[in-house]
Amino acid sequence: MSELRKDPVTGRWVIISVERGKRPTDFVSPSSQRKKGGFCPFCPGNEYTTPPEILAFRPPDTKPNSPGWGLRVMPNKFPALQVHGDLNKMGEGVFDMMNGIGAHEVIVETPEHFQSLSTMPLKAVEDVLWAYYFRLSDLKGDERFKYVMIFKNEGEVAGASLEHTHSQLIALPIIPRLVKEEIDASRRYYEFKERCIFCDLINQELEDGRRVIYQNGGYVALAPFASRLPFETWIFPKAHEPHFYPPEEDFSGLADILQKVLRQMDRILDIPPYNFVIHTSILHDEINEYYHWHLELIPKLTKIAGFEWGSGFYINPTPPEEAARFMREAKI
Amino acid sequence: MSELRKDPVTGRWVIISVERGKRPTDFVSPSSQRKKGGFCPFCPGNEYTTPPEILAFRPPDTKPNSPGWGLRVMPNKFPALQVHGDLNKMGEGVFDMMNGIGAHEVIVETPEHFQSLSTMPLKAVEDVLWAYYFRLSDLKGDERFKYVMIFKNEGEVAGASLEHTHSQLIALPIIPRLVKEEIDASRRYYEFKERCIFCDLINQELEDGRRVIYQNGGYVALAPFASRLPFETWIFPKAHEPHFYPPEEDFSGLADILQKVLRQMDRILDIPPYNFVIHTSILHDEINEYYHWHLELIPKLTKIAGFEWGSGFYINPTPPEEAARFMREAKI
Repeated sequence: MSELRKDPVTGRWVIISVERGKRPTDFVSPSSQRKKGGFCPFCPGNEYTTPPEILAFRPPDTKPNSPGWGLRVMPNKFPALQVHGDLNKMGEGVFDMMNGIGAHEVIVETPEHFQSLSTMPLKAVEDVLWAYYFRLSDLKGDERFKYVMIFKNEGEVAGASLEHTHSQLIALPIIPRLVKEEIDASRRYYEFKERCIFCDLINQELEDGRRVIYQNGGYVALAPFASRLPFETWIFPKAHEPHFYPPEEDFSGLADILQKVLRQMDRILDIPPYNFVIHTSILHDEINEYYHWHLELIPKLTKIAGFEWGSGFYINPTPPEEAARFMREAKI
Repeated sequence: MSELRKDPVTGRWVIISVERGKRPTDFVSPSSQRKKGGFCPFCPGNEYTTPPEILAFRPPDTKPNSPGWGLRVMPNKFPALQVHGDLNKMGEGVFDMMNGIGAHEVIVETPEHFQSLSTMPLKAVEDVLWAYYFRLSDLKGDERFKYVMIFKNEGEVAGASLEHTHSQLIALPIIPRLVKEEIDASRRYYEFKERCIFCDLINQELEDGRRVIYQNGGYVALAPFASRLPFETWIFPKAHEPHFYPPEEDFSGLADILQKVLRQMDRILDIPPYNFVIHTSILHDEINEYYHWHLELIPKLTKIAGFEWGSGFYINPTPPEEAARFMREAKI
């Protein structure tokens, strides 16, 4: 029989539909992300086609916006938000709005067109995480922004308009809804129990083990109890940490777990398109005891996206215990 | 410059991205829902391939589960929830769950394989709405259920696994998250203003006119101010009505507006795949002054579904004022 499960943080219910139980092979193939090549504005030599870089990891003897870099960050050429201007809030009867002030940046993770986070050297994955951290720290200085959302769309089906692997960052004058819900819910739990709900959840999952996908010294990857979608994966630092932050000045543990999990997915789901989003505390809430940053990773497998859009209610055909087992057993 | 807009009910922010402004023709074609035919379990003569019917509109001289019907309702052959059994709630540390008790039904809207809600006779659309209402009323009698969600996925891309046009109904022992949020938010507004927020919104929109797509005596179709996706459309009864209900025993006005809007979409977006969901009050909250039932319709046009999944935050490239204008000007 299928099961209704409630996400302990947001209160979101999902149906885990055992009858429809789907194995990895049921999802594979049409969406495989093998790359085709062709002209690419993110490849070395084409730097002139993008806005000027904001940050780059490159040898000191190379010039900005020229080849030689290992990673490059620039403003999105077609930004959803504009970085210049004052923030103006307006009302119109029942409606509230503000002008679209914000930053929208692109992180080109490697000069190699045919590489991805799952195939590049571990050191390069670490550099990507450092780039996230440097940009986050820089944007924190802008008083107009309340939240920085870092995310990645890999593959056309997952919304990537260019196949050269890259992440994006959006700095916002507001707090996105699901993030706010999570933060509010974790604050309520803290007021009640004086503990971080994510810490409780991590401890319970590490003890139980059925939904643990992978762990190393500092991090754990879980198939969440109330997974919305097949093979949904969350990565947490084991120690309480409200903000996305390098523990002891080192991102090697996070790079390791992120790459491991992506390699497991590539193996069992044949290089699926995917999205990930980093959920971190709001910018000016320096230290808090209730929120625990994490990364939410969702391979884009099912065509549905159907009534879920309208209802916030999900039917997941793959129980997370099975997803975790398939992932653990993947030969990588 | 783009604009951040807040949905007055849920508090959800969206970016209306004017720079990226998309016209209907930018979305058209790969997803056109022209049908291919082939063996179909929903076609007359194949009734033996489905579970037995729960409700059918058929002449008195025809037998159940045989041809002759105009509309047919049966349990979903692959239900997400099971109708038999007691509801058991359980906890496990931080997690809450219950067994998957519920009803999952399919409404086959017409015997004609190549028809759809936008092409069938208006009378047949009315019958579909009556079928929704009859099933809703019947399931209300089951004390285990708190909410009945009626929805439709049209087209493979929108999650329809069979191309013969049909709707679905799920009766749930819980209240879906977005519905609960909407209901809670509208209750808070009522406590503050002693008015229904949807009534206020409808009055403001009718006066303003820019986001009105179509209206008749009893109903209005709007492009919502904080539309999440291009050409998102909401249909409301103009008079306050908490539950999905036929005014004066008549669904002709609702059938008219629903079909008109679908025809407008078919015309300007070349028969797009779409989802709609009926948002109505919870089952046993008989009469209330704060919630106003409505239908939310979203054509499935953009590939993204990207970081929106993880954040609840949307970037919409088509301002609703423009979407409404394109819809109004569609020659149908």
